[in-house]
Amino acid sequence: MKICRVEKPLVATNRIPGLEHRHLQVVLDGKSRMVAVDAVGCTPGDWVLCVGSSAAREAAGHKDYPSDLTIVGIIDHWAED
Amino acid sequence: MKICRVEKPLVATNRIPGLEHRHLQVVLDGKSRMVAVDAVGCTPGDWVLCVGSSAAREAAGHKDYPSDLTIVGIIDHWAED
Amino acid sequence: MKICRVEKPLVATNRIPGLEHRHLQVVLDGKSRMVAVDAVGCTPGDWVLCVGSSAAREAAGHKDYPSDLTIVGIIDHWAED
Amino acid sequence: MKICRVEKPLVATNRIPGLEHRHLQVVLDGKSRMVAVDAVGCTPGDWVLCVGSSAAREAAGHKDYPSDLTIVGIIDHWAED
Amino acid sequence: MKICRVEKPLVATNRIPGLEHRHLQVVLDGKSRMVAVDAVGCTPGDWVLCVGSSAAREAAGHKDYPSDLTIVGIIDHWAED
Repeated sequence: MKICRVEKPLVATNRIPGLEHRHLQVVLDGKSRMVAVDAVGCTPGDWVLCVGSSAAREAAGHKDYPSDLTIVGIIDHWAED
Repeated sequence: MKICRVEKPLVATNRIPGLEHRHLQVVLDGKSRMVAVDAVGCTPGDWVLCVGSSAAREAAGHKDYPSDLTIVGIIDHWAED
Repeated sequence: MKICRVEKPLVATNRIPGLEHRHLQVVLDGKSRMVAVDAVGCTPGDWVLCVGSSAAREAAGHKDYPSDLTIVGIIDHWAED
Repeated sequence: MKICRVEKPLVATNRIPGLEHRHLQVVLDGKSRMVAVDAVGCTPGDWVLCVGSSAAREAAGHKDYPSDLTIVGIIDHWAED
Repeated sequence: MKICRVEKPLVATNRIPGLEHRHLQVVLDGKSRMVAVDAVGCTPGDWVLCVGSSAAREAAGHKDYPSDLTIVGIIDHWAED
């Protein structure tokens, strides 16, 4: 899993039906920016745990959900370095 | 998911039958160029959300579709930096 | 599989139910920091073998476990270079 | 999918039975060299479309085929930059 | 698939039962060091073909085997550059 920081929500009105209405968050993994499905309810600035690969699908709710990166936890304390 | 910009369509007449006649788009992820299956109907210049890993298959329509990168949404507003 | 060094446990109280109460470890793969599910019981400083991709799910216990990196072995002797 | 250039065939006589007798091609993705299963019949110098991840298995013919990179199309026109 | 060079066997006595007693090899992919399950019987110095992603599981013997990198062939002739 990756340790990422939540930057802001992402709005994509024109999306495939499979993405449903889940919240998407722009996250920073070091300096690279990615988008993750939010499965825990986080807010900008949170340090979160993101799971990728095929596990991101189940983590987002069910096996057919088309996610390759899902936020699965909020880290209690994290000091960036 | 990755945030990419659509560059142009890709033409590959000689392809495996499994790829069907779906539209393929050349997308830019920062400076690296990749090809994604277009599941939303986008045009060059659009900022899009691309899903990879095994989720790209379902996102392209069905589990047996041979995609490893599928465009699943068009981002409403995006400012490149 | 990757050869990583265990740094410290990671605490994420607010997590999806699927992660259960498994121990999570911050591991170093060279200079990059990641989080792995601990399936062997390791301690900080150990050199470990981490499996990623979809194999991380089975390695963590069962096919539905949402892991993309699981510690599957402790290396007997390892000299960093 | 990746845009690669075919360099030359790869010969590996001692291989697992699962690889069968499919043709393997050394391909260049920018400056990095990889090996892909040839599902279209290409020749050195061709610009091809390669699919990775779990989709490479189906693209190579069937779900149990052990490929993580399969050539699925020949690009009609490509100008390297 | 990746073209790697076999460096040496890896010993990890404390491992999850799922890894069984298969041989593990430290392999070099350019300058990065990884560990692969040996499905062909290779020796240090051999140039080998390694498959990753979910295909590494089937290549290691069966679908539940927790590998993300498996040696599937020995390359007949390879000149490093």
